[in-house]
Amino acid sequence: MKPQDYPRSVLNMISALKRMPGVGTRGAERLALWFLQQGRNEANQLAAALTTAVETVGNCPECGFFAEKGCRCTACDDPARDSSLLCVVEQATDVLPIERSGSFRGLYHCLGGKISPLDGVMPEDLAIEKLIDRVKAHPGCEVILAVGSDVEGEATALYLAEQLGKLPCRCTRLAQGMPAGAGLGHADAITVMRALEGRRGL
Amino acid sequence: MKPQDYPRSVLNMISALKRMPGVGTRGAERLALWFLQQGRNEANQLAAALTTAVETVGNCPECGFFAEKGCRCTACDDPARDSSLLCVVEQATDVLPIERSGSFRGLYHCLGGKISPLDGVMPEDLAIEKLIDRVKAHPGCEVILAVGSDVEGEATALYLAEQLGKLPCRCTRLAQGMPAGAGLGHADAITVMRALEGRRGL
Repeated sequence: MKPQDYPRSVLNMISALKRMPGVGTRGAERLALWFLQQGRNEANQLAAALTTAVETVGNCPECGFFAEKGCRCTACDDPARDSSLLCVVEQATDVLPIERSGSFRGLYHCLGGKISPLDGVMPEDLAIEKLIDRVKAHPGCEVILAVGSDVEGEATALYLAEQLGKLPCRCTRLAQGMPAGAGLGHADAITVMRALEGRRGL
Repeated sequence: MKPQDYPRSVLNMISALKRMPGVGTRGAERLALWFLQQGRNEANQLAAALTTAVETVGNCPECGFFAEKGCRCTACDDPARDSSLLCVVEQATDVLPIERSGSFRGLYHCLGGKISPLDGVMPEDLAIEKLIDRVKAHPGCEVILAVGSDVEGEATALYLAEQLGKLPCRCTRLAQGMPAGAGLGHADAITVMRALEGRRGL
């Protein structure tokens, strides 16, 4: 007697769903059964959205953010943006949190990672040469280093500050301090130290 | 100045992913970015698996379990299965837990729900007529009612027992009692009551 199992195509769907991050065996099975119960429209709609996205989305040749293939992103194409402000981020996914803060009106530059010799990521693997070209094209601009404040982020910021120091630009770094809405009780020692170092007059 | 956002096709992908149960806005965005970073293969593979599954999977005309469209399921097609044992479950998704227990060698019958007048589900909405036909075709068979032990499940079991009482078959119900590996400390009062009622000699 063969044990009853899902048809082959359902098992394929389960294993494809399971490859997504944060989806385990039971979660994938639950999603697969949901798709079968919803009927073909739901599954076909997601399938089309996935295919279209990966086929049509590439990176902006200027800043590296997501853009329709072969096109510049909406920020690089927007003449109302201040091209004398350049915000350097690690990944394209770091752009949205800054945009959503509503307090930046300049352009972006995505490095594509951070310097991390242990992971084999060296400065030449990042879009640093392109950054230097862009800074040279806008003399007198401000470069805001919005890389992370972990060890690799700090190393990347230091390296960039050194490289950019030779160019006619001003180099700044995101402030470090207490996050909004947080009490001292939940802050770690390094955050408190940096908040004290960076204190401002009222 | 327009705020920078993901390209339209990425936003479409995010909203399609968000429709899946248990996936919120941030989860959908995280999955979408993961697909973009993985390259086109990963997304196309999931898209193909989804489309193939919903296009090719239907229900077994005999028992209602998932099967390739127009075909009977592997259990109904297996001559080694005992056709004098019929396990009645609410949903097609209830078959796998029983199969995985490795202790059932008969056939299944999926009702497609449970009697619940409050939700507008009446006996005629379930595959009960088909069940009666199958029982008539196998006189002397045993019908195991493996429906849930909630109010609607109990109502369904009672209704089926009454209908099947007129036919030449034996009607049984899954045992109720303590789940394997659980201590008394975690059991609710009704489970303990039913475990006491159903106690067995050693």
